[in-house]
Amino acid sequence: MEKPLILVTNDDGINAPGIRKLIELMKPLGKVVVVAPETAQSAMGHAITVRIPLQFHLIQSQEDYTEYSLNGTPVDCVKFALHQLLSSPPDLIVSGINHGSNASVNIIYSGTMGAALEGAMANIPSIGFSILDYAHNARFDEAEKYILHLVKLTLKKGLEPYTALNVNFPKSLETDYKGLKICRQSRSYWKEDFEERIHPSTGKAYFWLKGSFSLLEESHDTDEYALKNYQVSVVPVHFDFTHYQQIEALRSWENNLT
Amino acid sequence: MEKPLILVTNDDGINAPGIRKLIELMKPLGKVVVVAPETAQSAMGHAITVRIPLQFHLIQSQEDYTEYSLNGTPVDCVKFALHQLLSSPPDLIVSGINHGSNASVNIIYSGTMGAALEGAMANIPSIGFSILDYAHNARFDEAEKYILHLVKLTLKKGLEPYTALNVNFPKSLETDYKGLKICRQSRSYWKEDFEERIHPSTGKAYFWLKGSFSLLEESHDTDEYALKNYQVSVVPVHFDFTHYQQIEALRSWENNLT
Repeated sequence: MEKPLILVTNDDGINAPGIRKLIELMKPLGKVVVVAPETAQSAMGHAITVRIPLQFHLIQSQEDYTEYSLNGTPVDCVKFALHQLLSSPPDLIVSGINHGSNASVNIIYSGTMGAALEGAMANIPSIGFSILDYAHNARFDEAEKYILHLVKLTLKKGLEPYTALNVNFPKSLETDYKGLKICRQSRSYWKEDFEERIHPSTGKAYFWLKGSFSLLEESHDTDEYALKNYQVSVVPVHFDFTHYQQIEALRSWENNLT
Repeated sequence: MEKPLILVTNDDGINAPGIRKLIELMKPLGKVVVVAPETAQSAMGHAITVRIPLQFHLIQSQEDYTEYSLNGTPVDCVKFALHQLLSSPPDLIVSGINHGSNASVNIIYSGTMGAALEGAMANIPSIGFSILDYAHNARFDEAEKYILHLVKLTLKKGLEPYTALNVNFPKSLETDYKGLKICRQSRSYWKEDFEERIHPSTGKAYFWLKGSFSLLEESHDTDEYALKNYQVSVVPVHFDFTHYQQIEALRSWENNLT
């Protein structure tokens, strides 16, 4: 049987420890192509680059392993890999391991999950991995077996069409995680707070975004609940934003235009 | 009764004709505050600015009308308005009028809809308006009465919690649109094509993204179908990415970790 082709990307940039760990884990499983941003692209969501031209660099090329960097966003990396660099579509796209949570509403701001959703849009099974630890030396040891489990299952069974997985790992306490939980995205909100500072030469104010995360529910079937219980959260996600329950409710708005 | 407070933003930048038209339409309806990007921010999706500090400029301040620009993305504008500039939450957020479609999967790349979804996340009724015409002199005349209809209804009746509307107008044929249709997001895909050019001084290749849009269905209840029939499409949207049908299907993946 031919080796599966695995595309690896992330949003923390090609030199982040998270992607280096993910590459190391993927290499024994297939042919690996890395296309990752040159520089950190956190919080880029589903942004694409339309105002500057894209340029890529071939970093390494060995048997069954090729590595490119791109001066774009994570979504650019997936598009550029699928439509420019690869001659056939990959069997799997993995994105991460992101340094920081992409659970709950964080998915919408996430470049890591932007890349995974872009893969799903191209109907390629895609998984985003994130760990609730921003530290450069975040400990990935406990996550390894879960990554291998999910990747092997996805390569074997596939995912439903146009679906990705949003996988988050609790910050490691240096003990085994308490299993894996299939769950839904929890409702939450970022209460933002802008820190004001004064520019030393112009005397003008500038601001840094400094939010605090508020969970809006305590339900047991959510990703945040699983993570709080030191479980690995897995949310199957898609990219249909339609609020179906509201379609009939708004039907009367079609009428009475003057 | 006190005048409603309406926050206006966009992704084409504060000087785009689309936002100037939207401001003109909103002024008679309430107190209007504009917080819009200094420069074009198309295709920024739900990106937020975390690597450079934000700075705003007060452009105009009159009775019941204030206008600010911000060196950030559309989502930054909404966050900065809600948490820094405004002393009380607005009754409505409107974003647009975007020059170009945000129907179907375009919503995920859209800064216009990123701003509207950010409003919905703050539980403020929010509407994104877009027209299928990239021209700087796009004709908004036919759209006006639909914008007023939707804004007045939303101010009067509200929207369901955590919901926004994605409103798209066909390119004007200089005749009345054939009504308004509440619909769902259609399934589609961008087949990307990167145009390669050679840099005149370095001799190196660079690339521009140049996709073509493929509709993956012909169903009559979708936004693309309404637009093709010269109707105004209105899709109620939310920001829960969970693919609920897949939760039980993947339950067995919780087991058998070695």
